[in-house]
Amino acid sequence: MAYRIGKHTIVFNQPPKISNYAAVVGTKENNGPLKGCFDVIEQDSKCEQKSWELAESKMQQTAITTTLDKANKKICDIDVILAGDLLNQCIGSTFACLTSNRPFLGLYGACSTMAEGLLVGSCLIDGGCANNLIASASSHFCSAERQYRFPLAYGGQRPPTAQWTATAAGAVLMEKSNNCEFCVTHAIIGQMIEMGIKDANNMGAAMAPAAYHTISTLFSDTNTKPCDYDIIVTGDLGDIGASLLVRLFEQDKIDITKVYSDCGSMLYGDTQDVHSGGSGCGCSAAVLCGHLLDEMKNKKLNRLVFAGTGALMSPTSLQQGQPIVGICHAVVIERREN
Amino acid sequence: MAYRIGKHTIVFNQPPKISNYAAVVGTKENNGPLKGCFDVIEQDSKCEQKSWELAESKMQQTAITTTLDKANKKICDIDVILAGDLLNQCIGSTFACLTSNRPFLGLYGACSTMAEGLLVGSCLIDGGCANNLIASASSHFCSAERQYRFPLAYGGQRPPTAQWTATAAGAVLMEKSNNCEFCVTHAIIGQMIEMGIKDANNMGAAMAPAAYHTISTLFSDTNTKPCDYDIIVTGDLGDIGASLLVRLFEQDKIDITKVYSDCGSMLYGDTQDVHSGGSGCGCSAAVLCGHLLDEMKNKKLNRLVFAGTGALMSPTSLQQGQPIVGICHAVVIERREN
Repeated sequence: MAYRIGKHTIVFNQPPKISNYAAVVGTKENNGPLKGCFDVIEQDSKCEQKSWELAESKMQQTAITTTLDKANKKICDIDVILAGDLLNQCIGSTFACLTSNRPFLGLYGACSTMAEGLLVGSCLIDGGCANNLIASASSHFCSAERQYRFPLAYGGQRPPTAQWTATAAGAVLMEKSNNCEFCVTHAIIGQMIEMGIKDANNMGAAMAPAAYHTISTLFSDTNTKPCDYDIIVTGDLGDIGASLLVRLFEQDKIDITKVYSDCGSMLYGDTQDVHSGGSGCGCSAAVLCGHLLDEMKNKKLNRLVFAGTGALMSPTSLQQGQPIVGICHAVVIERREN
Repeated sequence: MAYRIGKHTIVFNQPPKISNYAAVVGTKENNGPLKGCFDVIEQDSKCEQKSWELAESKMQQTAITTTLDKANKKICDIDVILAGDLLNQCIGSTFACLTSNRPFLGLYGACSTMAEGLLVGSCLIDGGCANNLIASASSHFCSAERQYRFPLAYGGQRPPTAQWTATAAGAVLMEKSNNCEFCVTHAIIGQMIEMGIKDANNMGAAMAPAAYHTISTLFSDTNTKPCDYDIIVTGDLGDIGASLLVRLFEQDKIDITKVYSDCGSMLYGDTQDVHSGGSGCGCSAAVLCGHLLDEMKNKKLNRLVFAGTGALMSPTSLQQGQPIVGICHAVVIERREN
């Protein structure tokens, strides 16, 4: 049984274990600062599929099967899959999981989907509703660009505030266990915050206030401060959103800079022409499953806040003049000695 | 704490209470067989908003506020809102819940979203992750038609197998309680099933096998038969999908006809020119919250299977030749004497 403390924080009595994980990325993602961290590198942007949409599904499916292989488990051993993506009607996840023949819960949290999956998954396992599960998410630069912005062949210019949708997928296997290497101890379901941003090329600014709200609520609910965590990562505010988040905390006289990073800023290097950094459900999923959880495994990190940030909008809502709504779901992941 | 029985069924130890509910519909929906069952009838298809998309959000928001008013509660009393809809990136729910300032989990289950919300909500409450919550869903004929099919002004012909997306929304308030009028006792997370249907005007056929899978799993996991329930409702297979479901059970020599209904068949009358019946997240949400739960309150029904069916697809996936994937999430709702 979980219980609630403070305003919004859920505490898990038997913290669900993250027992394995895998990340799949494209070549651009593997040519950045995290080169070599990922399980599978897709050389072909179509992953030998007929469309970019099916390529995205293939990558998410590969992330799931690689996770299961690493855990020496079969898909039929899994109680439920929780998944989501950015494509209309979440078809990336549908076709990634269709052949699994396992119970499936579709989530929509835009780029916060990996965190939403970990969060809901933790609630299901801690509450006895599942013994194990897969949480997964994906995005693909090409499928996202043509759905949200312009046909790729149009070659539109991107402003400096724009983020680059990562061609990437990640999956984690969570299990009920008393014997944890690392586990999810706390979770916060984010609330939507909207500050009037209407520029789809400035998602970081739209999401930073939601990240601030969720992370500061975590601090106050659990009576912790930034130095109580080895790392606090948002995913994905990008460079501009991340600097806004730092400034929002400065107003509270809280310095998060010593422990703070953003998955969108970590994934790509300065020379990769991605402007404000990475984005997309797959960005934070791949940075978590390709890099951060390995750092925990290697005992370089013991306590991590994974704060997934999403921009809730559609091309239709933007064309109709509606603002971009930010949301941030967070989980605390702790390494524990066996 | 919940526990699992059989292959997939979740049993709640302290069944979460459905303490209030409300349904909002358009005029066409209130002119069918369920006339007078609904809390709010919107006379204007735009609900005094600037677009059909915002009208849909307004209807879902009205369903939530009406539910809270009936329960004599304020939105600030609510721990979390779970919501979803059919619009790209679930913007119907985003703009319905934006001003709530409450934690928000976005779900995507196509027309099964109301059942998915009840299911995940029950898990959260039973597991101690929330003391109360709102689950809501919506759809709008005009916003769905132009997104999925054709501009309304085009006046496209609809084949006899087509379903009519309901202009409707529903919301339930769930609470942790030992003192239940009616509560969710069991839940099954559906698995995706695809039988090669590629006709977006024949969703019922695409979803019926998934409904069969979930409901027959419920029967075998709980060792029950159709007569153990006062009513089994799917939402929304429509007339054609419903008759296919009956035939699938006939192959097992199980007759469900005495207790079986479909929300899509219940919402509209034969003279309303909706062809195979209603569909859309709002259809089953409004039939549950406008009619079925009232029937339980009035002691006409004691034990109900609410099996939400969704067609997982997008116009892009259809254009790319992918099949329509069916899914069915189910909950068992029981009336208990106080």
